[in-house]
Amino acid sequence: MPKDEITGAAALVGTRPDRPDGLDKVTGRARYGADISAPGMLFAAVVRSPHAHARIVRIDASKAEALAGVKAVVTRADFPEGLTGEAWNLQENTIAGEKALYDGHAVAAIAATSALIAQDAARLVEVEYEVLPHVTDVDEAMAEGAPVIRAGAADPTVPEGLHPNVVRYMEFGRGDVEAGFAEADLVMENAYRTEATHQGYIEPHACLGQLGADGKGEMWVCTQGQWFIRKMCADVLGLEAAQLRVTPSEIGGGFGGKTTIFMEPLSLALSKKAGGRPVKLVMSRSEVLRATGPTASASMDVKIGMKKDGTITAAKAEFRMQGGAFPGAPVDMALYCAFAGYRIANIQHVGYDVLANRPKCAAYRAPGSPMGAFAVESLVDEMCRELGLDPVETRLKNAVKEGDQASYGPKFGSIGLVEVLEAVKAHPNLQAPLGANQGRGMAVGYWFNHGGETSVSMAIGEDGTAQVSIGTPDIGGLRASIGLMVAETLGIPYEDVRVNVVETGALGVNEPTHGSRATFASGKAAVKAAGQAIREMCRRAAKEWGIDEDAVEWADGAARPAGPNAGKFPPMSIKEIAGKMGSTGGPISGHHESTMGGVGASFGAHVVDLEVDPETGRSTILRYLVVQDAGRAIHPAYVEGQYQGGAAQGIGWALNEEYVYGKDGRLQNPVFLDYRVPVASDLPMIDTVIVEVPNPGHPYGVRGVGETGIAPPLPAIANAIHAATGARLRHLPMAPHKVLKAMKARG
Amino acid sequence: MPKDEITGAAALVGTRPDRPDGLDKVTGRARYGADISAPGMLFAAVVRSPHAHARIVRIDASKAEALAGVKAVVTRADFPEGLTGEAWNLQENTIAGEKALYDGHAVAAIAATSALIAQDAARLVEVEYEVLPHVTDVDEAMAEGAPVIRAGAADPTVPEGLHPNVVRYMEFGRGDVEAGFAEADLVMENAYRTEATHQGYIEPHACLGQLGADGKGEMWVCTQGQWFIRKMCADVLGLEAAQLRVTPSEIGGGFGGKTTIFMEPLSLALSKKAGGRPVKLVMSRSEVLRATGPTASASMDVKIGMKKDGTITAAKAEFRMQGGAFPGAPVDMALYCAFAGYRIANIQHVGYDVLANRPKCAAYRAPGSPMGAFAVESLVDEMCRELGLDPVETRLKNAVKEGDQASYGPKFGSIGLVEVLEAVKAHPNLQAPLGANQGRGMAVGYWFNHGGETSVSMAIGEDGTAQVSIGTPDIGGLRASIGLMVAETLGIPYEDVRVNVVETGALGVNEPTHGSRATFASGKAAVKAAGQAIREMCRRAAKEWGIDEDAVEWADGAARPAGPNAGKFPPMSIKEIAGKMGSTGGPISGHHESTMGGVGASFGAHVVDLEVDPETGRSTILRYLVVQDAGRAIHPAYVEGQYQGGAAQGIGWALNEEYVYGKDGRLQNPVFLDYRVPVASDLPMIDTVIVEVPNPGHPYGVRGVGETGIAPPLPAIANAIHAATGARLRHLPMAPHKVLKAMKARG
Repeated sequence: MPKDEITGAAALVGTRPDRPDGLDKVTGRARYGADISAPGMLFAAVVRSPHAHARIVRIDASKAEALAGVKAVVTRADFPEGLTGEAWNLQENTIAGEKALYDGHAVAAIAATSALIAQDAARLVEVEYEVLPHVTDVDEAMAEGAPVIRAGAADPTVPEGLHPNVVRYMEFGRGDVEAGFAEADLVMENAYRTEATHQGYIEPHACLGQLGADGKGEMWVCTQGQWFIRKMCADVLGLEAAQLRVTPSEIGGGFGGKTTIFMEPLSLALSKKAGGRPVKLVMSRSEVLRATGPTASASMDVKIGMKKDGTITAAKAEFRMQGGAFPGAPVDMALYCAFAGYRIANIQHVGYDVLANRPKCAAYRAPGSPMGAFAVESLVDEMCRELGLDPVETRLKNAVKEGDQASYGPKFGSIGLVEVLEAVKAHPNLQAPLGANQGRGMAVGYWFNHGGETSVSMAIGEDGTAQVSIGTPDIGGLRASIGLMVAETLGIPYEDVRVNVVETGALGVNEPTHGSRATFASGKAAVKAAGQAIREMCRRAAKEWGIDEDAVEWADGAARPAGPNAGKFPPMSIKEIAGKMGSTGGPISGHHESTMGGVGASFGAHVVDLEVDPETGRSTILRYLVVQDAGRAIHPAYVEGQYQGGAAQGIGWALNEEYVYGKDGRLQNPVFLDYRVPVASDLPMIDTVIVEVPNPGHPYGVRGVGETGIAPPLPAIANAIHAATGARLRHLPMAPHKVLKAMKARG
Repeated sequence: MPKDEITGAAALVGTRPDRPDGLDKVTGRARYGADISAPGMLFAAVVRSPHAHARIVRIDASKAEALAGVKAVVTRADFPEGLTGEAWNLQENTIAGEKALYDGHAVAAIAATSALIAQDAARLVEVEYEVLPHVTDVDEAMAEGAPVIRAGAADPTVPEGLHPNVVRYMEFGRGDVEAGFAEADLVMENAYRTEATHQGYIEPHACLGQLGADGKGEMWVCTQGQWFIRKMCADVLGLEAAQLRVTPSEIGGGFGGKTTIFMEPLSLALSKKAGGRPVKLVMSRSEVLRATGPTASASMDVKIGMKKDGTITAAKAEFRMQGGAFPGAPVDMALYCAFAGYRIANIQHVGYDVLANRPKCAAYRAPGSPMGAFAVESLVDEMCRELGLDPVETRLKNAVKEGDQASYGPKFGSIGLVEVLEAVKAHPNLQAPLGANQGRGMAVGYWFNHGGETSVSMAIGEDGTAQVSIGTPDIGGLRASIGLMVAETLGIPYEDVRVNVVETGALGVNEPTHGSRATFASGKAAVKAAGQAIREMCRRAAKEWGIDEDAVEWADGAARPAGPNAGKFPPMSIKEIAGKMGSTGGPISGHHESTMGGVGASFGAHVVDLEVDPETGRSTILRYLVVQDAGRAIHPAYVEGQYQGGAAQGIGWALNEEYVYGKDGRLQNPVFLDYRVPVASDLPMIDTVIVEVPNPGHPYGVRGVGETGIAPPLPAIANAIHAATGARLRHLPMAPHKVLKAMKARG
């Protein structure tokens, strides 16, 4: 029987069907964080510190509590004591204890019958502060005499004699760096700085929490990871994980910033205090900017030795990062990524994680990688110019290949840096003519990608359609990608598969959609689960045919007798098997749980052409090219979307975005008018090339694609501005006034 | 190490902890069918036929559509054509096609921005009817000249020459009935009638449906079975099952009446027509009574032959039932249950399933069994009195035992009828003195119980707590029972387990909470799933200890080295294993899917003492005893609740409840003032005895307990009224005026 008489299934992976959540999202039907309501619901407001660093002497909520409509007020006193480690950090960041540690730090929260009453009540809470000296800059925070943010927070890695704000220290490398520098024809060293930026997701944090006196709770929340929310809320509130069910809403962007908790435990604590009534908490944009995870700011020194032919002989980097008033700046990952594209025999990395009076940083797309790339790729460009070398060829000369030892230690598996650089060379953008005040810059970027804890279940419906339960929220087309892989594996049409992002109470533990893991790990687990269902369906057919189950194979959506039995019975389609499953053994499902291995790293290279207005210093992007290794693009449109989105965010970071703190330690620009992300008119169409060097660790060759793309824009734009103007900017953002100043300094 | 140093876990099965949903339900936090809302939600109203039988000539909805706020009107024309079999029946019952088939049959539905607008609009829909002759009585419906409700609806079992309203016919038995009657000392034959009754759940049907032009839908609904709703809605609307996600709400009673669809597809069809806006549809009580599943009414002839010593020599039954205008009256199950308690060598059963102009019947607690019990147990009582035999001893003499062939064919496995009857004999209620106008009656009842399609998953949380995903809504304490079994299996405290009733998109197919299957089947599957998780945890411990996984056993919440390795390593608790699962292989889950075998049937016997007021004929229940075999009572309080609930419903059916149709074919009593269910003051405390003859087909010995208890009250009360008054009532309900009339007829 010809294949298409069974299911009509075609090769689906690599095609571009509509995403299953598309209609919901374009018609406004999709329900986001703030879209859920429940009977008896209360609304919350949060009282936040106006001081960067202050002792909380007294909180008097009596006037707030007396306001009609106010049902509960919580302060730190309503949270369990005795937490340690990251659980303590999360609790302390959720609601301040002895001290407010940054401008915007929550000190109390109110639940009332309307949002307006809650906000009015928040203004009635009297907090007496003893203002303390503060510090927000990373270098200042580790200098002698800086105010101590939290004594005793340093971990054992920190050498003696450093300021107590240094809470983590790392040093690693190989070879003989000094000998390497001695071998070089050119040694350059420079200092680079990046400012904190926010993930800038469209949707502010929002949740609806309900917690009873029996310790049982429910939460509807906008998050990248419902199990992380569950675990963190349980830790902060002293609950049992299984007693809290967390349902993820649709998500209007996360970029790493929604992998942790900020205000979620407040809604649960308020609910419990209000007799179990559900409490909705929706942040304003200024709350998002003041009190949720921006990335870290960095101060970096990099030194590289290079031969005349471009060979890098040695490299050294010292990165200092502040990630707010808590440990966790991604200095380690910044160092790992910084030189990842280069074969370097002699290399040394040093890193400092430093506390400052700023909000607790959260992950932001390839955490750390953009900072490292900015420093290293800027310096490599400076050296290529100095030595008259082609920047692409120089990177090719030093490019890591499969089997090489990475700059940070492990051996690379299959990687596609060389293929990416060859594709860059071949792209017409590199031949586009440039005019006056125009320049071209390029840079490479890297992300490890991640596997992580993964649970997926799938089930066959009574009509032979299939559903897949995943635990990783769909941010960039995940349902479509998983649907394509499962449909292709089962041999059924894409439309016959529904992929459901389910709540924590319905599936085993999953890490969030982060680390560029979702299509890789949930996809791999879904394919394994589908394989389990296929084996069960073959077993049912074998039983009916009275042959051994090993003598049945699955192809094109049907069980078929194989080997010596081939052709003895007509194929039995999935619809036929499903239609009688109740009488042949029961429901047919497949499951997979593991900490997913087989991760494939992804390299990318960006090339930007821009023009700098000599009168204003404003940079206009003319052309932008992203070339990146996807392993295999399951749904190419969504891979391209990730490439373009990463580039857009990197362009914003490079040119405009930064957290601006006043001398008073208060954030000066906590609104989108002043914190300026690129809008559509700021950007050209971003060209993309998907390189496909399959990852052998995934059944369809997938690598993560979401994060690499944010790293190259920072240095590529710096390199292009230098090419256009001769001015080298080593401190982000390269805002017009700074570019103008640098141009004027050159004369 | 002493056992309780590991987890403190004790034997949990058989204890009576609070139900996990208890706080939610007593504080009003639990969300029922009507408690969900969604942004942009519309409200629906249904236009219903005022005629029992009428051709629909024309529907003009133009005035309704023109009303401000009306967003969609649907009629049958909005539903796909070409359905057959039960899918057609369901569609036709959801919304009338050519004819309205009963008073209350939906003919159009409206969605508007408020419930009041929808109701106003419903009154503006003009329906032109051609009224046809109707029939509502079962015997009249199969008599010559009765109006034909649906030509060609009869299945091939129906012999030629019967009225076309007879749609199914059955005949089965064994032995030689005439010879059996010839052997008897006494042969009696009588006719019995029961009227249709409604399940009478507190919560009316309610749902919120959303369906997009892309064929993807969501439904929140009060149901006993979310997969049945999914399949039926998909069939009726031509959707793919996997594309519809159905979430069950908490449920305010179902008793079988919420295992099917009534108005659910209307909300989806309206939503689709209204551009995908969610549509809420909540029935009024009169809609529930007029248009949702009552049980069938029955007309029954029974003949029994008995020896002087009480031995039954032969039996014969002919049951005629109408289940509304569609096939499906439970005449088969009524016949199967009727004589199930008796060893009878010569027996014959005949059954007719007949159409009438009434709503499509739905399952109601042990469907069919109460009717059969009423007829047979009344006649056995009459014969015992005639022969001067003790009714309990007579039933013991004829009682079926393990290995006996049931009256309806199959061989009984382990059953507890004898144990039940012995417990009745021993109960003090049988010695209670009776006064004037007081009488005592007893009867036995039977239900097969059911396994059915079952999927359960469970997962271990990062803190060693456990969650169980089940697909059977919790009506009578299911979460508590499953939680007890899983906690005991895992060896952890009851409070460490959360049992979640999940939506269809998160689990494989499950049959509803019906057939008394949920504690049995979901419980058995949960124990098997927990066993799978335990094996995985033993594997993790074995790996860490470096020993073979078979050399590890699980006890009291911990893995322990066993056999030659016993004591070599300290036990590894579930919390310890869970805490590091991410680095030892990933999430730990367990799953089970099957059509569940090993079902154990349940017999019960009831004894009622009552007093009949000689002036009014009103019966007052004085004492009521339920004795029933539970196999094993996992949570005895909820088993007792089922026994008491079944008795209460049976008492209502026996004494008060009935569907009263006027000559015009319209239901005369579609409100709870006129359709009178027993209230608390109508009933004494109902005494219960749980007999435990373990079911070997379940790991904890469970039999279903929910249904058997509704069958015995009907005949037990008839027998007691006879004992009190000498009047034998053979037509339910035994309302005061009927009792009085029968007493007067005796003089």
